[in-house]
Amino acid sequence: MIPKYKLIYLNTYGRAEPLRYMFAYAGQDYVYEIIEKEDWPKLKPNTPYGQLPVLEVDGKPVAQTTAIARYLAKQFNIQGKDDWEILQADSLVEALVDYRACARRLYTEQNPEKIAEIKKEQTMYLEKFDTILSSNPSGFLVGSEITWADLVFAAVLSGRQDDSEARSAALLTLVDKINNIPNIKSWLKARSKSNASAK
Amino acid sequence: MIPKYKLIYLNTYGRAEPLRYMFAYAGQDYVYEIIEKEDWPKLKPNTPYGQLPVLEVDGKPVAQTTAIARYLAKQFNIQGKDDWEILQADSLVEALVDYRACARRLYTEQNPEKIAEIKKEQTMYLEKFDTILSSNPSGFLVGSEITWADLVFAAVLSGRQDDSEARSAALLTLVDKINNIPNIKSWLKARSKSNASAK
Repeated sequence: MIPKYKLIYLNTYGRAEPLRYMFAYAGQDYVYEIIEKEDWPKLKPNTPYGQLPVLEVDGKPVAQTTAIARYLAKQFNIQGKDDWEILQADSLVEALVDYRACARRLYTEQNPEKIAEIKKEQTMYLEKFDTILSSNPSGFLVGSEITWADLVFAAVLSGRQDDSEARSAALLTLVDKINNIPNIKSWLKARSKSNASAK
Repeated sequence: MIPKYKLIYLNTYGRAEPLRYMFAYAGQDYVYEIIEKEDWPKLKPNTPYGQLPVLEVDGKPVAQTTAIARYLAKQFNIQGKDDWEILQADSLVEALVDYRACARRLYTEQNPEKIAEIKKEQTMYLEKFDTILSSNPSGFLVGSEITWADLVFAAVLSGRQDDSEARSAALLTLVDKINNIPNIKSWLKARSKSNASAK
């Protein structure tokens, strides 16, 4: 039996977006509960790790975005075809987390040498992603079919702050391909009309 | 058929240790290849994401420690009994990564207010872990049996730099219980005789 899903997050894109891509792709209904910023401090202590998003599955809460995404991938049958593919998708998604962490480090770093180092690391990740993608005839990141890795990459790399960095043709083609899947396209259209679009 | 595993890392504990705990627990043979620090810069570009550890499975390399650990957990049948348990273990391991990131942030942070904030966050994580552990009658982190989460927690929290912070009685009991499993005990004994023990 399909459980009842409730996704709880702030009124913005951010960390919930890969999960919303996955729900959209799977055509899975879920409740999206928006926490207003001013209410967050008093709700924070009652969440699993003081963080959002939180997913409730039949009322039971769980946190940690990538863990949630991986769980949904399994429920929606887009985890990868075998253990090796599952591992590849996992490894790519974790590398993407590292890549994103570079952007956050750049945000506070002052030292020019360190800034150059971080930028070099960012470029390395993009090149590695590009190589993986370009060498796969399917045009997906892993194996011959779409996996959650493709959805997570598209959600993250089509976010505004990453636009300027995701200039690899192969990555842009992937983002475009995912964003044009009818279910995702519908979500992006709905999103642009929702409150979240303002943030 | 069981594949041939080779784990490649520096001559130190660090990120490879949870994986070594898992190999030890499962009684699974593997080759441990040490990269000397001076050789790393020239090897780095040839690794999947310029990082160690790398696991080779029948000669095929893969990176990202948590992805590797999750893969091994599945191979060794300690991933959790069902999708919900698998999700709980995943979420805990990712929260532990966040907890560890606090320590790294403290290392460079100068601002006393920010230091206080990070320390508060660390305490929050330890309290959450403690609550989860204390409320589980099995004494493990998830469900009624050991999972990879217990092994990862024990490997990380018995590391030297975390000693002083992991003062929750429940967490210390877990670490002690895991470190006294005969296979783990043997590994810790072997480790103390190996080169890695010096680092």
